[in-house]
Amino acid sequence: MADRGDGAPPRYRDLPETDGGARSGWHLFGEDDSVGLLNLVTPAKAVQAAGLVRRGAVFPLDLASDFLDPPLFGRGFARRTTLVTRPGAALDDVHDNFYPQSGSQWDALAHVAFDRDRFYNGRTAADVDGGANTIDHWAARGIVTRAVVLDLAGAVDERGGPGTAVALTPADLEAAREAAGVEVTTGDVLVLHTGFLDWYATLGRAERVRISHRDALRAAGIEHTPEMAEYLWDLHVGGVVTDAPALEVWPPDHRREAWPWGFLHQVLIGQFGLAIGELWWLRDLVEDCRADGRWEAMLSSTPMNARGGIGSPANALAVK
Amino acid sequence: MADRGDGAPPRYRDLPETDGGARSGWHLFGEDDSVGLLNLVTPAKAVQAAGLVRRGAVFPLDLASDFLDPPLFGRGFARRTTLVTRPGAALDDVHDNFYPQSGSQWDALAHVAFDRDRFYNGRTAADVDGGANTIDHWAARGIVTRAVVLDLAGAVDERGGPGTAVALTPADLEAAREAAGVEVTTGDVLVLHTGFLDWYATLGRAERVRISHRDALRAAGIEHTPEMAEYLWDLHVGGVVTDAPALEVWPPDHRREAWPWGFLHQVLIGQFGLAIGELWWLRDLVEDCRADGRWEAMLSSTPMNARGGIGSPANALAVK
Amino acid sequence: MADRGDGAPPRYRDLPETDGGARSGWHLFGEDDSVGLLNLVTPAKAVQAAGLVRRGAVFPLDLASDFLDPPLFGRGFARRTTLVTRPGAALDDVHDNFYPQSGSQWDALAHVAFDRDRFYNGRTAADVDGGANTIDHWAARGIVTRAVVLDLAGAVDERGGPGTAVALTPADLEAAREAAGVEVTTGDVLVLHTGFLDWYATLGRAERVRISHRDALRAAGIEHTPEMAEYLWDLHVGGVVTDAPALEVWPPDHRREAWPWGFLHQVLIGQFGLAIGELWWLRDLVEDCRADGRWEAMLSSTPMNARGGIGSPANALAVK
Amino acid sequence: MADRGDGAPPRYRDLPETDGGARSGWHLFGEDDSVGLLNLVTPAKAVQAAGLVRRGAVFPLDLASDFLDPPLFGRGFARRTTLVTRPGAALDDVHDNFYPQSGSQWDALAHVAFDRDRFYNGRTAADVDGGANTIDHWAARGIVTRAVVLDLAGAVDERGGPGTAVALTPADLEAAREAAGVEVTTGDVLVLHTGFLDWYATLGRAERVRISHRDALRAAGIEHTPEMAEYLWDLHVGGVVTDAPALEVWPPDHRREAWPWGFLHQVLIGQFGLAIGELWWLRDLVEDCRADGRWEAMLSSTPMNARGGIGSPANALAVK
Repeated sequence: MADRGDGAPPRYRDLPETDGGARSGWHLFGEDDSVGLLNLVTPAKAVQAAGLVRRGAVFPLDLASDFLDPPLFGRGFARRTTLVTRPGAALDDVHDNFYPQSGSQWDALAHVAFDRDRFYNGRTAADVDGGANTIDHWAARGIVTRAVVLDLAGAVDERGGPGTAVALTPADLEAAREAAGVEVTTGDVLVLHTGFLDWYATLGRAERVRISHRDALRAAGIEHTPEMAEYLWDLHVGGVVTDAPALEVWPPDHRREAWPWGFLHQVLIGQFGLAIGELWWLRDLVEDCRADGRWEAMLSSTPMNARGGIGSPANALAVK
Repeated sequence: MADRGDGAPPRYRDLPETDGGARSGWHLFGEDDSVGLLNLVTPAKAVQAAGLVRRGAVFPLDLASDFLDPPLFGRGFARRTTLVTRPGAALDDVHDNFYPQSGSQWDALAHVAFDRDRFYNGRTAADVDGGANTIDHWAARGIVTRAVVLDLAGAVDERGGPGTAVALTPADLEAAREAAGVEVTTGDVLVLHTGFLDWYATLGRAERVRISHRDALRAAGIEHTPEMAEYLWDLHVGGVVTDAPALEVWPPDHRREAWPWGFLHQVLIGQFGLAIGELWWLRDLVEDCRADGRWEAMLSSTPMNARGGIGSPANALAVK
Repeated sequence: MADRGDGAPPRYRDLPETDGGARSGWHLFGEDDSVGLLNLVTPAKAVQAAGLVRRGAVFPLDLASDFLDPPLFGRGFARRTTLVTRPGAALDDVHDNFYPQSGSQWDALAHVAFDRDRFYNGRTAADVDGGANTIDHWAARGIVTRAVVLDLAGAVDERGGPGTAVALTPADLEAAREAAGVEVTTGDVLVLHTGFLDWYATLGRAERVRISHRDALRAAGIEHTPEMAEYLWDLHVGGVVTDAPALEVWPPDHRREAWPWGFLHQVLIGQFGLAIGELWWLRDLVEDCRADGRWEAMLSSTPMNARGGIGSPANALAVK
Repeated sequence: MADRGDGAPPRYRDLPETDGGARSGWHLFGEDDSVGLLNLVTPAKAVQAAGLVRRGAVFPLDLASDFLDPPLFGRGFARRTTLVTRPGAALDDVHDNFYPQSGSQWDALAHVAFDRDRFYNGRTAADVDGGANTIDHWAARGIVTRAVVLDLAGAVDERGGPGTAVALTPADLEAAREAAGVEVTTGDVLVLHTGFLDWYATLGRAERVRISHRDALRAAGIEHTPEMAEYLWDLHVGGVVTDAPALEVWPPDHRREAWPWGFLHQVLIGQFGLAIGELWWLRDLVEDCRADGRWEAMLSSTPMNARGGIGSPANALAVK
């Protein structure tokens, strides 16, 4: 890996420029890399993370399959069918219409390209079909690292709440970090609590139906700006996860003239190779952090070992 | 929980007797319990487990989705469909025919009953339909505990190999434990390596097709006996996992006259509430244990948060 | 069957009244009937229909699986997976997410109730689960009868076009019938051409995406009125099919105060037991009728023999 | 179409020879044809067929979805899920794991190749992926033609019954034809009743489970011989359908040295472009033929309009 001489990745301003004013992390981990910034999650990170386990409090971070009702983006529920192997005595089950990205999720690096046929590390859509950037590359490593939790719910509430298009800035994240009294270290996973799912849990059916449509959804999230890209890169985190439907403020701007900054996924996934997690259930973890004042935890996650997959359930635990 | 006065569960011989000469763990954790022996996986176990992380070596324990080809028991492959959201630029995917028990898996306590309409803790099939004993009860806790690894591959090989019906006895397990120089403590997960998947990986297609049929399959595993039930109970483990298709030697004996000892699942799941994991990929972990002589690890697993589900992928990591 | 003494069903005004000012066809074909007005499609109708075949021109009436793109009502495409049995030499396939009502379709009598737990012929939702009113009852008969085609596209175009909420009246249908110079006889299937699919075929992607959302869709169709119910009943047809997403003008009015006339399905299916077909591809047939001046044909259809099913592809041909 | 000068296709002995001693029907209907011998089902055939409708007796020929229990060849049941749109008042449904060839079915010309990458009319597997020889080509025509019914159940019973590997010869078919007193004309569909499904309906569960395995299945059918190929070609039928799992006696012989005559599908589909139907429910139709002595009917079928599909339910009716 090309670096600054001290083992850490280069600074954003030292990355090569690419189109649209973005900078590129391609080839930092080699021509054949399909892992991206999770390469920064080294064995040393697992040791560091295990050292954070004090009370043995375990926080599952995956939503139940029926929490989002109806599912967002019109995906439809997964259909689970119970199969009776021996009546009254032995059961199996099988799932159909199972979208690994319909609930608490990881986006594989194959999910969004920087631009047409320009996926992370220079891959084409055909390369993705051939197995580049897919979720099984993460499954083959597993993820055990330190999580740093930033509570942005207060800032979001002041500016309209998690069901509105509040754009969080680097200054907002820094303020939360300072309030938590925590440093971010290379290879951490940054956990951003916006309060979206806590708010969703309070909604009546009519409102849930309404925001299940892509066009009607509004959600708080990080801003789609070069400044945010630079801020996140320079933290040298392996991943960023959140409780909102997208990491960024929703909706994005897909017009060509807004490219690439209309939708920061294009830079974060397509150029940086950043692991992005969305719709994670963070409330229990955040309440515990508020109670004990410790905004860090061991994070353990097993991305789905689906050959060629584009996404995965979060399959994640925080342990304190 | 009723216990022996020292916080540990009762001994097998002190459990109430039930039909067929079996003993019952029902109601040990209360009338409403759907968790079973994973109740023994307490926060203290997570702390103990984290203390085992020395080098930060992470071992993903889930098979890739295409490892078993064809899938066992005629289940058919999961079908993963890539969905093109924006051509060449944004992809999603969706899975159909996804059997959570087709690869590396957990069996929920709803999987097999002691007898018709006698599921763990006295539940009927209707209770299971209503949400008793299902996988989401485990998902709501997560699993972080100490794993103890027993290498039985040598014993299996001496007696015919993992593709034959080698029945492992308590003495075999004890011998492996002593060879490893390790103690089993309450709330551990016991990890039994038979070599089945290592052997499977060497098979040609014709042989893999042949054993994919239920009737043709033969596999090593623990014996279907009261002695094995007593041995496993008295270890007071939270779960037992293996690399073979069933925890027990295959095939079981489903004839009525053989009940309940013809198929130990009926006692282990239906009466004990034991968490059973099957088809876990153990080779990398076992090779590491052989190399460093340490047969224990932190085990982390996130059962699938599927409301009402009967099973789950293992979603498991060992960390040393 | 209770009738007027001449073998035909009673007139609408002679049917018993039920709630909301509607009249009821329940029990006209017996307490156990799950077939409804398709009972009027007798063997004599098949003979009559066969007599209409002059040139042997066959008109398939089912849309291709990719015609509606994206599918309406957010259902998602069916996913067809090709399975390679022997590479390059033998293929199979399998479908997931297959909504039998996503394209050209029949609604079974289990599709919509008159009111909560009041399905056709007095059935509850539990009765439907037990097999009442389901599609297999029609599959067990097949449908071969005379089709009468009414071309309403001109009337629709004059009043806003098929993509607007044009409500067609009995007078509109009568005018089309007279223009066609055709009589409707007991047991016919009435075929109503609004031009919706012809218009849909001209739309660009953005517009197709827009109207795929339930709330944004507008479509011409018959009015939701007692007069239309009476008109259709008194024709004594076995079914009514159309090329629009619903037989009736869309959207319906689901407010309680509008019940039952806010959504005529509730009366037509729930009280009459009328076979309703939607999204049938009628353009080729209608163009042929325009050319030869004959607005009748043999209609042949095989509803899907799915045990307990709620709907079916049209599986229909017209032959002239 | 190249022909003998009288509008009929060439005789088998006049077809060009190809490998393995087979003769080829490729390009008889043009280089771009994906329809095959169903080209012989002309409008004149629909007129002829309609003329056979005397009593209006309709015979649905599709099995119910739960008739084959368990499904043959280990395919698993289709899973039909009822979706509650409005509780107690409006239902939809959706199917997963729906194999169009698991019950009464048509094999598209893409189903089996003559040899590797030699599908009907010279198409490769890639051509099939691109839409050649797929079921939608038949759906776009529909099928209305004369059916000729041959009752072979007696001959099968004499030689071991439909659950044994009875190989039917051209002489057997000729004897059945003569007994029926019927001529086969160009473009007919030949309907062969072996009694397989009638026998299947009598089996207990254990036997049905046993024969659901590919290796254990035995079934009567036409012999895999050049003589049978010549006989069927020279009838100039558009299709051949049967009530057995394969048109031919089962099992076929897939060894390379047996090619192409080890599995007549390879010649009938791959070289002739013959429409083959299997597992059709023929008992009701055959009993009617026995009763009235008329062994012909109008056949109407709508192959599934699935873009790129490899098979279809039969979606078929016979009308007399």
